[in-house]
Amino acid sequence: MSTEIKSLNEECGIFGVWGHQDAARVTYFGLHNLQHRGQEGAGIVSNEEGQLHGYRGLGLLSEVFANEKRLSKLYGNAAIGHVRYATSGNGHVDNIQPFLFRFFDSQVSLAHNGNLTNAKTLRRELEEQGAIFHSSSDTEILMHLIRKSNAPTFLDRLKESLNIVKGGFAYILMTESAMYAALDPNGFRPLSIGQMKNGSYVIASETCALEAIGASFVCDVQPGEVVVIDDNGLKIDTYTTETQHSICSMEYIYFARPDSNIAGVNVHTARKNMGRTLAKEAPIEADMVIGVPNSSLSAASGYAEFSGIPYELGLVKNQYVARTFIQPTQELREQGVRMKLSAVRGVVEGKKVILVDDSIVRGTTSQRIVQLLKEAGAKEVHLRIASPPLKFPCFYGIDIKTRKELIAADLSIEEMNERFGSDSLAFLSEEGLISSIGLKFDAPYSGLCMAYFNGDYPTPLYDYEKKYRASLKENKVNL
Amino acid sequence: MSTEIKSLNEECGIFGVWGHQDAARVTYFGLHNLQHRGQEGAGIVSNEEGQLHGYRGLGLLSEVFANEKRLSKLYGNAAIGHVRYATSGNGHVDNIQPFLFRFFDSQVSLAHNGNLTNAKTLRRELEEQGAIFHSSSDTEILMHLIRKSNAPTFLDRLKESLNIVKGGFAYILMTESAMYAALDPNGFRPLSIGQMKNGSYVIASETCALEAIGASFVCDVQPGEVVVIDDNGLKIDTYTTETQHSICSMEYIYFARPDSNIAGVNVHTARKNMGRTLAKEAPIEADMVIGVPNSSLSAASGYAEFSGIPYELGLVKNQYVARTFIQPTQELREQGVRMKLSAVRGVVEGKKVILVDDSIVRGTTSQRIVQLLKEAGAKEVHLRIASPPLKFPCFYGIDIKTRKELIAADLSIEEMNERFGSDSLAFLSEEGLISSIGLKFDAPYSGLCMAYFNGDYPTPLYDYEKKYRASLKENKVNL
Amino acid sequence: MSTEIKSLNEECGIFGVWGHQDAARVTYFGLHNLQHRGQEGAGIVSNEEGQLHGYRGLGLLSEVFANEKRLSKLYGNAAIGHVRYATSGNGHVDNIQPFLFRFFDSQVSLAHNGNLTNAKTLRRELEEQGAIFHSSSDTEILMHLIRKSNAPTFLDRLKESLNIVKGGFAYILMTESAMYAALDPNGFRPLSIGQMKNGSYVIASETCALEAIGASFVCDVQPGEVVVIDDNGLKIDTYTTETQHSICSMEYIYFARPDSNIAGVNVHTARKNMGRTLAKEAPIEADMVIGVPNSSLSAASGYAEFSGIPYELGLVKNQYVARTFIQPTQELREQGVRMKLSAVRGVVEGKKVILVDDSIVRGTTSQRIVQLLKEAGAKEVHLRIASPPLKFPCFYGIDIKTRKELIAADLSIEEMNERFGSDSLAFLSEEGLISSIGLKFDAPYSGLCMAYFNGDYPTPLYDYEKKYRASLKENKVNL
Amino acid sequence: MSTEIKSLNEECGIFGVWGHQDAARVTYFGLHNLQHRGQEGAGIVSNEEGQLHGYRGLGLLSEVFANEKRLSKLYGNAAIGHVRYATSGNGHVDNIQPFLFRFFDSQVSLAHNGNLTNAKTLRRELEEQGAIFHSSSDTEILMHLIRKSNAPTFLDRLKESLNIVKGGFAYILMTESAMYAALDPNGFRPLSIGQMKNGSYVIASETCALEAIGASFVCDVQPGEVVVIDDNGLKIDTYTTETQHSICSMEYIYFARPDSNIAGVNVHTARKNMGRTLAKEAPIEADMVIGVPNSSLSAASGYAEFSGIPYELGLVKNQYVARTFIQPTQELREQGVRMKLSAVRGVVEGKKVILVDDSIVRGTTSQRIVQLLKEAGAKEVHLRIASPPLKFPCFYGIDIKTRKELIAADLSIEEMNERFGSDSLAFLSEEGLISSIGLKFDAPYSGLCMAYFNGDYPTPLYDYEKKYRASLKENKVNL
Repeated sequence: MSTEIKSLNEECGIFGVWGHQDAARVTYFGLHNLQHRGQEGAGIVSNEEGQLHGYRGLGLLSEVFANEKRLSKLYGNAAIGHVRYATSGNGHVDNIQPFLFRFFDSQVSLAHNGNLTNAKTLRRELEEQGAIFHSSSDTEILMHLIRKSNAPTFLDRLKESLNIVKGGFAYILMTESAMYAALDPNGFRPLSIGQMKNGSYVIASETCALEAIGASFVCDVQPGEVVVIDDNGLKIDTYTTETQHSICSMEYIYFARPDSNIAGVNVHTARKNMGRTLAKEAPIEADMVIGVPNSSLSAASGYAEFSGIPYELGLVKNQYVARTFIQPTQELREQGVRMKLSAVRGVVEGKKVILVDDSIVRGTTSQRIVQLLKEAGAKEVHLRIASPPLKFPCFYGIDIKTRKELIAADLSIEEMNERFGSDSLAFLSEEGLISSIGLKFDAPYSGLCMAYFNGDYPTPLYDYEKKYRASLKENKVNL
Repeated sequence: MSTEIKSLNEECGIFGVWGHQDAARVTYFGLHNLQHRGQEGAGIVSNEEGQLHGYRGLGLLSEVFANEKRLSKLYGNAAIGHVRYATSGNGHVDNIQPFLFRFFDSQVSLAHNGNLTNAKTLRRELEEQGAIFHSSSDTEILMHLIRKSNAPTFLDRLKESLNIVKGGFAYILMTESAMYAALDPNGFRPLSIGQMKNGSYVIASETCALEAIGASFVCDVQPGEVVVIDDNGLKIDTYTTETQHSICSMEYIYFARPDSNIAGVNVHTARKNMGRTLAKEAPIEADMVIGVPNSSLSAASGYAEFSGIPYELGLVKNQYVARTFIQPTQELREQGVRMKLSAVRGVVEGKKVILVDDSIVRGTTSQRIVQLLKEAGAKEVHLRIASPPLKFPCFYGIDIKTRKELIAADLSIEEMNERFGSDSLAFLSEEGLISSIGLKFDAPYSGLCMAYFNGDYPTPLYDYEKKYRASLKENKVNL
Repeated sequence: MSTEIKSLNEECGIFGVWGHQDAARVTYFGLHNLQHRGQEGAGIVSNEEGQLHGYRGLGLLSEVFANEKRLSKLYGNAAIGHVRYATSGNGHVDNIQPFLFRFFDSQVSLAHNGNLTNAKTLRRELEEQGAIFHSSSDTEILMHLIRKSNAPTFLDRLKESLNIVKGGFAYILMTESAMYAALDPNGFRPLSIGQMKNGSYVIASETCALEAIGASFVCDVQPGEVVVIDDNGLKIDTYTTETQHSICSMEYIYFARPDSNIAGVNVHTARKNMGRTLAKEAPIEADMVIGVPNSSLSAASGYAEFSGIPYELGLVKNQYVARTFIQPTQELREQGVRMKLSAVRGVVEGKKVILVDDSIVRGTTSQRIVQLLKEAGAKEVHLRIASPPLKFPCFYGIDIKTRKELIAADLSIEEMNERFGSDSLAFLSEEGLISSIGLKFDAPYSGLCMAYFNGDYPTPLYDYEKKYRASLKENKVNL
Repeated sequence: MSTEIKSLNEECGIFGVWGHQDAARVTYFGLHNLQHRGQEGAGIVSNEEGQLHGYRGLGLLSEVFANEKRLSKLYGNAAIGHVRYATSGNGHVDNIQPFLFRFFDSQVSLAHNGNLTNAKTLRRELEEQGAIFHSSSDTEILMHLIRKSNAPTFLDRLKESLNIVKGGFAYILMTESAMYAALDPNGFRPLSIGQMKNGSYVIASETCALEAIGASFVCDVQPGEVVVIDDNGLKIDTYTTETQHSICSMEYIYFARPDSNIAGVNVHTARKNMGRTLAKEAPIEADMVIGVPNSSLSAASGYAEFSGIPYELGLVKNQYVARTFIQPTQELREQGVRMKLSAVRGVVEGKKVILVDDSIVRGTTSQRIVQLLKEAGAKEVHLRIASPPLKFPCFYGIDIKTRKELIAADLSIEEMNERFGSDSLAFLSEEGLISSIGLKFDAPYSGLCMAYFNGDYPTPLYDYEKKYRASLKENKVNL
């Protein structure tokens, strides 16, 4: 959740509701609980008796809709929304979703979470046929495919198109008369269906958004499914039967909110189990267990509980840091000025500390926190990571596209321990991760995608294949 | 720390540094870690070779100084700063501190944390002598007293004036040639001295601000002391010897950051002890212990540790909520739409829950959280409050001026339990609180102010006396 | 120029420069002098060695680029820009130009001033072939036509496409390697070429933008021409020879800045001549001549000069009014509170006044001003309009699409005089207008479009034909 | 009016209304027409049945009250307001008026236009008696004097205080029960009384503000008068009888709006007369007369009318320039890029031009405009200034405090002509100015202050005397 601290970013949250008189407002509150999935832009499109209205902008949801009029003008009984993490810092509003397309014969709005692996190829093919793209995102591709299709109904055209795009995707679409949701054949990204007290159906990237609006959980969208919600209710269809669960394990480890359930497993509970398993796999004597706030607190408390070592508040995160643009100068930084995290001297001074973190990407944060604790007087700092080493990029919707960004792709555990200045370092095993989450799907790794850890990608990589193979050679990796 | 959730507000944080080339920037980072003490306005005054420059505004520190030029124009080797909680929502920039006074013969800047009990009387006397006040705050009074004084030096005039004002106060002043800090004779509010790596002295409301800038702790300012810092270093003087420690117990319970030490006691540790003592005093069988984020997490983990019942994440606070102006309509609220806190259904469903909160003011939050947990399926919710019932107002710097705002002033514990819908309710005892904090001063309650709990005010109430006595009669309180 | 007062709006200004190291900045200053042609949005796209960069936003140019970084990041030696008047109040950034298209094989940016008469038909045809439009503007159509074309070069494809679109248009396009400008076969909208001191060629909607950047006038773009500017210099080509001048007469009457020349005729001089001719055609005895600020001042001084009646400042326009959102309540309005225009009592009281206005659209402004003058004590107000009555809509780029908006389509001159409360009312004749401007083209009306006055449209109306014919019947107009 | 072009600044506009249900809104619209007197800050204080409420901020009136709530919260039946020109660019909100003072026994609000000549002395005396000032403006002094006074009523105390302050001042004050206005004994600054249709009295710096709100003119406040307006109506009193009119001649020449009347003389008419007199005093043959927009247009039309030479629009001012922060680089400036003013090539090319300007301060603008016209092809430019040369500073409320800022204090007319590059240069004579305005007071210069032209200050200079005498010696001026 703490995207300010770690350089690991989810690429979006999506939400939709059909049949509620306050649809745009419901969508606002749903997106509000998905804000951790993307902070660089947000948008909502509503449906007022077949007429679609939209507003989107750069910034947090509350900034985009700071002026209440922006929201109250989105009339209608249905709405879909999106929060976006923009991969380039220089975010352009052109890429903010949901997209809204107005044709002479229809209107369609579209929101997307994920990453297509054959986007470059498809885009080129479409452009060669005369298509014009306005954004640099993958998302427009689906709209072009739907418009190119000659299938009889919108649903048919959508299903045909979903068989052409590859990779990780959760889509929500809205036309004049219905809302559609679809998940890729591997189910990389989470997507759940809920129902409000008045009977309205909602779709959301995480179940925490259902809770936020008082909706009860109905079911998860399954790989290969396309869901249709209209005034007649909910209908679940499939666009392919060649499916196999490969749920993104990083959702459990880091991205999802602890109060969400994914595939029926509560995220906090999964993380606490990871901490417990880690305590079993990599025990050490110490005075206390502390977690990196906020994403590692569940795992840390699990470690503490299993080991019987007290769980303490050894690090405090400044809750007001989010939008501070004034930074310490290099000189002040050398004098110890820092803004986001503080070590609690009164707690750690003279103590042996077990520091639990959820994962390590570049390693710069880990190094800084170990140093913080030592400066605050910690006698020893034993670093325990509640996930296996991240060694391989993700092509299904997480913003790590090259191995260069991953310290564990380069260094051994001993080398990392030395670089961080910690007194010992251990990671959770792959088996430990799988058992801690406890999925039961009849699929490799019980239904988890473990590719970041072991390079075992559950699909072909298409456009990324060549570059990825080359990067492996560079790093002399033997798979 | 979570001022958004509880209607209990600290009235300021102050900071000062003398002898650092980046003084304004150091002050910025110091104030940044004091932001929890006041979010409605901030300001910094710097001293450039005897010339004082200032900037202040409404909003969070990072908003007031959003334009880096505002900060970089505050040249000089010394600076003082202030973060303010404004008692009236319609905050006026006139009241934002530090105040900066330019006289024909000198310049003085002034920052204040606390509340004077004889402000109304003094202000009237001064106005009758022709004084003009620009703000509605107490703070200007000290400046008028200093200017009225005929004592020979600024320090003498300051000491004379400090003997006239009554109540709770921590002041930082800056003139062309020195910085001064002073604490009231009871030491209600915390105030600490630190030293940076380059030797510069700093003063701060809490030690967490020292940590933030890499300063080491030197000592606390003691009741009745006035500290002078100038190019010759640090000198500690006293303006009165009639002193007795009455440290605000609410600083330990709720206000201060857990990484601060007050009178040598770490706040997190004190809170964890309160939780442990509460577990001893009011045990109950249950499946899990959960705390109200963020201020009650220390107490909750203490309760869990002592009781051996697992500590779980049963409530999640939305980290993006701070500045959201769009609120659910009444109808959406009835449908269960909520924004700040979510109960974790996957954790609490079907479980007996011990809910630990740090304190109860109006009781509306407690009622709401119990309801949240029940709606998320908790079978039982046992509410445990890690402090005694708040029954009396504070006149020394916390924003509770009347008994009407305090539910425990009206209702018995049974009545509160019924109102909240909890399955049982217990508070920490006064003795339990005192022993958990563990101060050793030779003073009533070991040096704590317990007036909010028992009405035993350590000083006369001056301007507030009459109204307070009347309020007791209304409530039929027998002291 | 005073678009705040009259409900008559131009639909854009365009600008481009090739071969200047500060291209984006030059474009900024050029657009600055075209701001009167559109105030609802602005944008600039630059060309940095074949890589196009763009920024656009809602608001005045100076608001869109309030942050200088926005401009300074638009690197490169060429740039095109656009200021836009949005026909719908609820302006969307999607419609702000220049558009920037990034294809796998090329990049193209596009800016447009005008209105296509066959846009609806073309858009439908394109959508039926699978095209997707993002904006509601006509402008994207040209891009789709270019991409559909199979002609060998970009210039060929552009020329082919220019023969498909109909109506009024001035386009500027930029690719990696060249800048293109094109004008419709009737030359409805102005478009001029200039040259900077360093040799760089510039294109602008009006010559006042050339003056603003110190460029000298080279020539006007002629109907049916397409201009290519690249590193080899300027080349003028044609895409059609079926051309005939029909320059928008409203550019002379109202839209263009008085310091611009259109087809070699200075706009101020033309307006002054209209005033002189009006004085000849519709003389009246009076104490003074006053003009409606600012657009009618030239005509008023011409009337004064010819008639020998003194020209006075009888109306003052508040120069700070542009962005005031607080408006008088109905009650205050009845008490005489007003914001934009004041009558000068000290000048007009007790006097016979000739009030010169450039044109009448809805008539509400005329009525208000006559009333203002009478309330300020004017004995008589004789209204003289320096153009013929506006009776017919424009389909070539001015925002009057229906006859309902035009008071002169409904009422006779006597009826209007009565409604306005003026003591007499006269309009310039059509012949008077034509001779005052003094064009010499071998074309109907010497090369002017007079359709707004007499319904004699110089082209077929395509998509608008049917609706327009119906509106004529409704109004019982005999042409 | 065109304060962007000339470096000559008025120091404020003031307004008040008593007895109108929409008092704050009326004040807003009144101030709106006084905006030309000060653009750096604005404020309004209202009176809701004896309770004063205020809001003030930096920027234009419409920016300060951009949020309509700011205005609608200023409840009450009376209000006073202020627009301010801040002498230091780094404007501080502390100096924005009206000031609002809340005492234990009363509330007072205060707005001021003018400059005190004994402010420094009074402030020092007051500070020595213990007074504390918050702003750097003169305005607080009056409040201190009132509070120090022992006279029996507020009016008595005000009158006593008005006899202590010296210089140029127009004050509006408001207490719980009345509104007061006062003018200095020389009547330097304009101040008029009006009455709204519902009977409410209003006070305003200029009569154009009365027109704006539909109020009729009642009378001017006379030198030495203090006006009291309360629920019983209007009462005019005097605080001194030692009075003599010295109305600021620059109000007629440059500052006031042309639609205002000062001492019964319409400002446009006065300016037109100045132009006529100038044509008589300094005739020259030429093709056209042009004026510098906007403040010199009246004088230019007067010159044209008297001389019989046509009045033309040879210069155009960009109406969108006000808040543009992006400026041409030095290089672009050399290439001729400019933003505020354009010469109309189509009008002036090859012509002999008479350029009329209202006044010359530093001379940089005159030089620039002459150059602009020559670059646009003007054959000759004859500069005619419709006021005498400005040679001496003003101490009564105009922001020219030293002779260094005045080119005519240093250079002869021939030297200026050479520097400007004009073909001839002439100024209006002092006698010509006096007769053109046509006041009839029995006082030196018929009641005008002519000190800027001849150094004949109508009052002692107090605090400024010494420095002023020294500056004369430096410049070797013989008076």
